[in-house]
Amino acid sequence: TTSTGHVNLAVIPGDGIGREVTVEALKVLEAAAPADLKFAQTRYDLGAERYLTTGEVLPDSVLEEIRGQDAILLGAVGGKPNDPNLPPGILERGLLLKLRFALDHYVNLRPSRLFPGSVSPLSADVLAKGDIDFVVVREGTEGPYTGNGGALRVGTPAEVATEVSVNTAFGVERVIRDAFARAQKRPRRKLTLVHKTNVLVNAGSVWWRIFSEVAAEYPDVTTDYAHIDAVMIYLTTDPQRFDVIVTDNLFGDIITDLAAAITGGIGLAASGNVNPDRTAPSMFEPVHGSAPDIAGQLIADPTAAILSGALLLDHLGHPEAAAKIEAAVLADLTAREPGTQRRTPEVGDAIAARVAG
Amino acid sequence: TTSTGHVNLAVIPGDGIGREVTVEALKVLEAAAPADLKFAQTRYDLGAERYLTTGEVLPDSVLEEIRGQDAILLGAVGGKPNDPNLPPGILERGLLLKLRFALDHYVNLRPSRLFPGSVSPLSADVLAKGDIDFVVVREGTEGPYTGNGGALRVGTPAEVATEVSVNTAFGVERVIRDAFARAQKRPRRKLTLVHKTNVLVNAGSVWWRIFSEVAAEYPDVTTDYAHIDAVMIYLTTDPQRFDVIVTDNLFGDIITDLAAAITGGIGLAASGNVNPDRTAPSMFEPVHGSAPDIAGQLIADPTAAILSGALLLDHLGHPEAAAKIEAAVLADLTAREPGTQRRTPEVGDAIAARVAG
Ligand SMILES: CC(C)[C@H](C(=O)O)[C@@H](O)C(=O)O
Ligand SMILES: CC(C)[C@H](C(=O)O)[C@@H](O)C(=O)O
Repeated sequence: TTSTGHVNLAVIPGDGIGREVTVEALKVLEAAAPADLKFAQTRYDLGAERYLTTGEVLPDSVLEEIRGQDAILLGAVGGKPNDPNLPPGILERGLLLKLRFALDHYVNLRPSRLFPGSVSPLSADVLAKGDIDFVVVREGTEGPYTGNGGALRVGTPAEVATEVSVNTAFGVERVIRDAFARAQKRPRRKLTLVHKTNVLVNAGSVWWRIFSEVAAEYPDVTTDYAHIDAVMIYLTTDPQRFDVIVTDNLFGDIITDLAAAITGGIGLAASGNVNPDRTAPSMFEPVHGSAPDIAGQLIADPTAAILSGALLLDHLGHPEAAAKIEAAVLADLTAREPGTQRRTPEVGDAIAARVAG
Repeated sequence: TTSTGHVNLAVIPGDGIGREVTVEALKVLEAAAPADLKFAQTRYDLGAERYLTTGEVLPDSVLEEIRGQDAILLGAVGGKPNDPNLPPGILERGLLLKLRFALDHYVNLRPSRLFPGSVSPLSADVLAKGDIDFVVVREGTEGPYTGNGGALRVGTPAEVATEVSVNTAFGVERVIRDAFARAQKRPRRKLTLVHKTNVLVNAGSVWWRIFSEVAAEYPDVTTDYAHIDAVMIYLTTDPQRFDVIVTDNLFGDIITDLAAAITGGIGLAASGNVNPDRTAPSMFEPVHGSAPDIAGQLIADPTAAILSGALLLDHLGHPEAAAKIEAAVLADLTAREPGTQRRTPEVGDAIAARVAG
């Protein structure tokens, strides 16, 4: 599917540096879009500030308006750490996860690449093994994230609290199919299933069975399997082994932060919360948070937000425009002089100029 | 509690290199034990070979015999990868987890230290920040490891599979108390709770509440909290920040493999499955597996098994003997010549000689 003409874009700048990087992401998005693609932006003020001012997280009417858009660009949401007026988890569950579930973002897409100039915490020996370039396809609407479970006798010595990981053949199959299709389009065509099948047998069985079944339809994709604990060792000692990883919601949350760390930190990590069936808009956001400690100084690096814009263009059916952004980011990163710090708009301008030029 | 005189020791050498390293661990254990401490060993043949020969994993009568011992030393269990006669998970659930649950090993103890001469996959910059030396106290009898959950319409497109993480105030409090007591005995006296409270609210609340309550009784222990995903970043970019970590069964499984990786691999990682109430024997084992690929060649490094023996002595009330083993291992590691490979018994002999000398 390719959107031409008019794209209705919901923009949720959020809080702190989220607002600063979103401006730059939009700048680059406009510069990269084909001439016949116009963005009609609607801005939604959601996040910590909205909540602290009005008590609202995501009113139903706003959610329904957003549902009518073609795509969503999100900056970052979150207030000051330990703000007593901001109960922990309220924005995560009431806004981010609510959007993922309500809009059926079952593919949480997180590319991981070690870009030139990025400082990896891995040793020269590990890095010398080759390029790090893989994508994690994290399931986004099931697993331990469903809010199933509960608690009995809360606050007493007899409390029992449960969390239920829900895994359906329906949910597992669609994300595994998406991952195979993505793996098939990449040069190495390799897909790794990550789970903990030796302990979580019920969930593990359905993941394993469907993975094996779909694999038979993709004879040109090499497959393998790793337990989540072993992945910790692989990602730190041999990350080059991965091409595409498909995994459950919680394992994906954990793996993608490790992936971001080894590729130089969450400063460059982009993500897409994708509804591949296009029954609702997909959402694109940098992995980093709102960083209240540096907000307002215009020193945040907008690169992750800009790369999220590339994922958005790709999803809308404009892979060439997306590739233009990626190439411009790569050139910008290569040209960066270590030790010099550019301001947020300078980075956005530089990348936009490369995209246009 | 100090055991003097006679210690009834269950020895489960297991499979592959498990058998080879156990011999060395016992050698060093005997050398380090105080003169008045005698080990009466009973050997239990359990593991892949037993299963493949007899179909038995852990007969009830054997479990009850083991329950009557004072402590357990385990090598490693596991057969050849993808052996069609060895269903995946059968030894994990039928033997390892069964022992942990049946013997109420609620403290799964995993010290993580970067020893001299170990090759960490982390960069020189990260390592230059200081020594890496922390302990993970992983809950061992609850969480997603309870085997609760199930599956409906298995093998059909309508399959639903669940895994239930069970968290009781009883289970959470006892492991948190143990972790505080351990943190208080260490020079830095710092304890970090790791969870995912922003998403797993039911389980998160009971962990958070009890952690805060017990913290009030330990004003001399500094506490903090980190989400499991953030821990991925901390362990790779700033592992020095950790002293003692307390966490749930699954997060602990994941963290300890990452911890082992950054401290030079699971080759040196020891662990204790501890029942602090001593209502049943505790079990000590290296974190590594049975390594069928190198079994029989006597080239496996027995150091992790030897260090597991130190944890065993410490648990039995002989911290000086445990410290002797640790010092001997440290001296041995420091004296190792890079590039030279000693045979398994040579390493055991060398460490035993240092312990005795
Ligand atoms: C903020 C939080 C709910 C979220 C998650 O756990 O998915 C975040 O960690 C992420 O990875 O996008
Ligand atoms: C073998 C497996 C069941 C076990 C676990 O998950 O606890 C292992 O990974 C460990 O960490 O001891």
